[in-house]
Amino acid sequence: MFRAPVGIVGFNGYSGRELITLLSRHPHVEPILLEHREGDDRPRPISHNGTHDGPRRMPCSAESAHSAGLAAVFFATPPTVSMELAGPMLDAGAKVIDLSGAFRLGTAENYQHWYHEPHTSPKLLKEAVYGLPEFWRSRVAAARLISNPGCYPTAANLAIKPLIEAGAISREMGIVCDAKSGVSGAGRKASLKTSFCEVTENFLAYSILDHRHVPEVLRTSGLEEGEFSFTAQLIPIDRGILETIYFRASGQIGSAEDLLEIYRTRYASEPFVRLYSPGQVPDLHAVAHTNFCDIGWKYDPETRRTVVVSVIDNLGKGAAGQAIQNMNLALGYPETAGLL
Amino acid sequence: MFRAPVGIVGFNGYSGRELITLLSRHPHVEPILLEHREGDDRPRPISHNGTHDGPRRMPCSAESAHSAGLAAVFFATPPTVSMELAGPMLDAGAKVIDLSGAFRLGTAENYQHWYHEPHTSPKLLKEAVYGLPEFWRSRVAAARLISNPGCYPTAANLAIKPLIEAGAISREMGIVCDAKSGVSGAGRKASLKTSFCEVTENFLAYSILDHRHVPEVLRTSGLEEGEFSFTAQLIPIDRGILETIYFRASGQIGSAEDLLEIYRTRYASEPFVRLYSPGQVPDLHAVAHTNFCDIGWKYDPETRRTVVVSVIDNLGKGAAGQAIQNMNLALGYPETAGLL
Amino acid sequence: MFRAPVGIVGFNGYSGRELITLLSRHPHVEPILLEHREGDDRPRPISHNGTHDGPRRMPCSAESAHSAGLAAVFFATPPTVSMELAGPMLDAGAKVIDLSGAFRLGTAENYQHWYHEPHTSPKLLKEAVYGLPEFWRSRVAAARLISNPGCYPTAANLAIKPLIEAGAISREMGIVCDAKSGVSGAGRKASLKTSFCEVTENFLAYSILDHRHVPEVLRTSGLEEGEFSFTAQLIPIDRGILETIYFRASGQIGSAEDLLEIYRTRYASEPFVRLYSPGQVPDLHAVAHTNFCDIGWKYDPETRRTVVVSVIDNLGKGAAGQAIQNMNLALGYPETAGLL
Amino acid sequence: MFRAPVGIVGFNGYSGRELITLLSRHPHVEPILLEHREGDDRPRPISHNGTHDGPRRMPCSAESAHSAGLAAVFFATPPTVSMELAGPMLDAGAKVIDLSGAFRLGTAENYQHWYHEPHTSPKLLKEAVYGLPEFWRSRVAAARLISNPGCYPTAANLAIKPLIEAGAISREMGIVCDAKSGVSGAGRKASLKTSFCEVTENFLAYSILDHRHVPEVLRTSGLEEGEFSFTAQLIPIDRGILETIYFRASGQIGSAEDLLEIYRTRYASEPFVRLYSPGQVPDLHAVAHTNFCDIGWKYDPETRRTVVVSVIDNLGKGAAGQAIQNMNLALGYPETAGLL
Repeated sequence: MFRAPVGIVGFNGYSGRELITLLSRHPHVEPILLEHREGDDRPRPISHNGTHDGPRRMPCSAESAHSAGLAAVFFATPPTVSMELAGPMLDAGAKVIDLSGAFRLGTAENYQHWYHEPHTSPKLLKEAVYGLPEFWRSRVAAARLISNPGCYPTAANLAIKPLIEAGAISREMGIVCDAKSGVSGAGRKASLKTSFCEVTENFLAYSILDHRHVPEVLRTSGLEEGEFSFTAQLIPIDRGILETIYFRASGQIGSAEDLLEIYRTRYASEPFVRLYSPGQVPDLHAVAHTNFCDIGWKYDPETRRTVVVSVIDNLGKGAAGQAIQNMNLALGYPETAGLL
Repeated sequence: MFRAPVGIVGFNGYSGRELITLLSRHPHVEPILLEHREGDDRPRPISHNGTHDGPRRMPCSAESAHSAGLAAVFFATPPTVSMELAGPMLDAGAKVIDLSGAFRLGTAENYQHWYHEPHTSPKLLKEAVYGLPEFWRSRVAAARLISNPGCYPTAANLAIKPLIEAGAISREMGIVCDAKSGVSGAGRKASLKTSFCEVTENFLAYSILDHRHVPEVLRTSGLEEGEFSFTAQLIPIDRGILETIYFRASGQIGSAEDLLEIYRTRYASEPFVRLYSPGQVPDLHAVAHTNFCDIGWKYDPETRRTVVVSVIDNLGKGAAGQAIQNMNLALGYPETAGLL
Repeated sequence: MFRAPVGIVGFNGYSGRELITLLSRHPHVEPILLEHREGDDRPRPISHNGTHDGPRRMPCSAESAHSAGLAAVFFATPPTVSMELAGPMLDAGAKVIDLSGAFRLGTAENYQHWYHEPHTSPKLLKEAVYGLPEFWRSRVAAARLISNPGCYPTAANLAIKPLIEAGAISREMGIVCDAKSGVSGAGRKASLKTSFCEVTENFLAYSILDHRHVPEVLRTSGLEEGEFSFTAQLIPIDRGILETIYFRASGQIGSAEDLLEIYRTRYASEPFVRLYSPGQVPDLHAVAHTNFCDIGWKYDPETRRTVVVSVIDNLGKGAAGQAIQNMNLALGYPETAGLL
Repeated sequence: MFRAPVGIVGFNGYSGRELITLLSRHPHVEPILLEHREGDDRPRPISHNGTHDGPRRMPCSAESAHSAGLAAVFFATPPTVSMELAGPMLDAGAKVIDLSGAFRLGTAENYQHWYHEPHTSPKLLKEAVYGLPEFWRSRVAAARLISNPGCYPTAANLAIKPLIEAGAISREMGIVCDAKSGVSGAGRKASLKTSFCEVTENFLAYSILDHRHVPEVLRTSGLEEGEFSFTAQLIPIDRGILETIYFRASGQIGSAEDLLEIYRTRYASEPFVRLYSPGQVPDLHAVAHTNFCDIGWKYDPETRRTVVVSVIDNLGKGAAGQAIQNMNLALGYPETAGLL
């Protein structure tokens, strides 16, 4: 069967490698590695019988993208690379799904503030569609340039946005989002901070109240800054994000089932959001190597204090999985193709 | 030099083993293993030259405690064992330091409610002194029976009690304590929940808003139930507790330094509490294998939102270390003996 | 498309769960959980839209197997269960693939000697075919009852059997096989030996020269006991087996390339064996979550000392993956169906 | 009590940090950090009461060493730094204990061959004493410059050297040493190879038959190259070395107890070598955070095949602990001071 070629820039990183794994199983597309400033640093088996030669490779250029007829190009790169090459790839006729933060914050000013460098492709900023299909599905389907959400904001928005929209949260009391991530979320660059001996048997908090994913959540959830307190933390594991979210429910919520009703209505036809019985919460193993976001919660009827636990695989729904979900929408394939 | 004999009941568990390690280095006491319903399940080197024979052993009975002249007995056991044997050991003339939850909750009713079994030693409940030296030092020094605090409450109280006492927290907005613990906190009993393959590459929340350490914190901190939201979580590491604590500072706090001032005043002469420069927070490696509690924080002046990070070694300041600190006080040794 | 129903007994263990994962993606069969002395101990999402309800379930009995028309039944169970139920399932018309050790050792005497209990199904022992397709492919294709190889013997045989057959090893000098396995190889039963805190930051050797996989290797490789020295060891990881194999090459081997030539000839059309350039060796990540066995080696021309490294995923080629490969052969599907 | 000042160069690495920890507890010496090309990259608590200010610091120069009257200087540095600064520190009157490979291989030619750079301090090479006290105690006690053994050779020599000397090994059959190390053995430099996500859930072999610790073992054990096959491997843990050593016992050995007899005689008065009952072997937890080398073995009387398991903490007896043991000898303190 014909499989449409799609390109991956940044295929040596963790998100890039996950894209290769997932796209190699995809029924409708075939991954092609676009070589850009990177060699291949892993030993590979000798090809002896054609069954495991891995994806094709080509130079990363608009010309080769055009002549190969790439239907889409994924950028699993630093934002500077995305800003430089997204435009040419769009000109070459490919849809672009960018996994970096280059197009998430809406304005060049925001980008400059949080990434400490100028935005070099401000025109595309306006065109970019935020790729959280559960909330912007039709826009994603029509987009040329899709900005794939950050991992932390994905888990946060899927847990709190339905409740905010339903008026189920006492916003004036504030929402606390205590987030934990596996180390692959930090990327594949060698760094003392992600060295084995520094991370193992350790746990640490970073970017307290100050993480660049905060403005992304505020912009997409409708919350004000003072309403959302966020801490990022590093778990000594490879992959997975768990967010423990605390708030006081509004007066309209009288039971844990009322929250279930809101979620259930909102996510009735969502293939990648799963809910748990009130009082039960998911762990990271529940979503490892999947594109699911699992949500569970505990509610205290006396005080209306509520704790929601939201989990994703940071390389799945938090990066490569969601990027493919977005690609499926943009290219007209079934949304779950290659992801279940 | 003469070292006073002290006994350990429950020496095969993780807290018991830590007691052996620490007491073996103690300048004033010598550990003796009190054998109670347990054999020895680890292969041990052959004794060939007297340098590593390990501690002496004797049966766990009031008689042997008395005839050996034990100055103190540590219980690193389930509460049922502590309730059964604490009295006889006190009668034998030993100070008792209990690391279980048997004597932490003040009343037999509280115990029954949270431990789902009757308290079998209610008379001793009244006598028991809560062994958090930073707040009850003189009472500990005079006590016969010391109830060693839970690991989570130790990290929580050291972080928030000075602020509560100083009126630095807007209590009506609530305090969120998102707590994470290494697996040794769950004890050494074989269980599917603490099996390697279930824990590794995982992270999970448990006892949300409902942990038996919550009533302990409320009782010792002076908070009301609705003011303190607590979640316990399991990190795939051996040892360490990190608590991320969120609250809104009261109007009297105008800067991160104001918080430093409160902590510094309160802890000026405390040997085991360490503070960080405002904006810096400790990680678990900072306190691994120590009796320290390290505290750091971040403060947002615009909204007065505050995040405090408190870390301890759950087997150190969270169990065996603190138990020895209490013993030092109760037996009149320097408080830091064997712990620095 | 029609997918033939196949049953899994022992679906809550690690091999059983891996069978579910892999068979759920299989194009030609559909997994059915056969409930036998086990409930379901994991929290599961609420079914809300039909996309993730998981496999069907039915009682584990010959009757239900017959009426459901099961084409095959996998036993991911202790040997006692396999010995009890394999016969009835064969009678019900299903092919049986047994992942336990029940049918690996050829005789009831051998079984009794190594498993310390009588073999209760000795008649089936004779019929059972050893399911290492790379060496017994046609027998597997014709078998009713397939004994899936042990994890350690799979990695060992794929590395050494071609060399033994080619006379490339100085057998009188002995072969050392130093084997290491992830913890999932020990199964999912709660045990102090596989508790997180006992395993993490640890490494240990067990069953030195005395592992029950040794007679399995001897029987299938043609080696004598004195020629094969085997140690099993536990790595603090979830999954993966790496064997470091030492021997002296025979006089006919003059270079690392001579070994490549032997392997390449033997494995020319094997889809699941991959070779590395002489001097390069694979690590566990190379085969994680796959059905591959990767083989690399180093050769010292002066002394003919040779070190071969063979890696598999113990739940893939070492258990569930190989079981499905065997099922594919026995049911006439393409050998790689569902496995690439 | 007066504690003699001793310096540490390279105090930010893992061995350096272990030296600080151990020397801070030492009864006779006081560690001083010698600052050489390195800042301080860890957040530190604010000093508020004098109990945890950490060691003194001074510039790393012969002048400051001289004026401070340093009794000894430890180099936990790359060999180039040791070669550059060992001479000046000796001239300043300090004993030097070098933890690098600079002075282990006896000749400048050997160093050049294995370290791929010229030896810049060849005169000192002759003077350097190999610091394995169990075999060269009196030479160590008289030395000015001590070359601290490599971690792998320490575990290997303590296991095999007594047997070689007693003629208990059939050397013509070869000795296989399959060695595994925690990641801290690779040092604290950021590198993709030691990044958390590359190491966790992985296991890999490196420097097969070709590790620079091989010539060190050959030189110190008396073995010939073809007699000793060595593979180094990386375990996903912080610290610990386990070596599984295979050989055929010579005709004079008839039982496992015969081996015990040899070891026991040789190590009768050794404080840091521990033996296990024949058939039992130690794991890494047995020696974690200690200066012990634990040795156990299994022997097959029919074939005389023998497997010895030798374990150390690579930062203890494999580096900092042994360095302090050597310092104790060289400065005339009790050999076990600060190490039990």
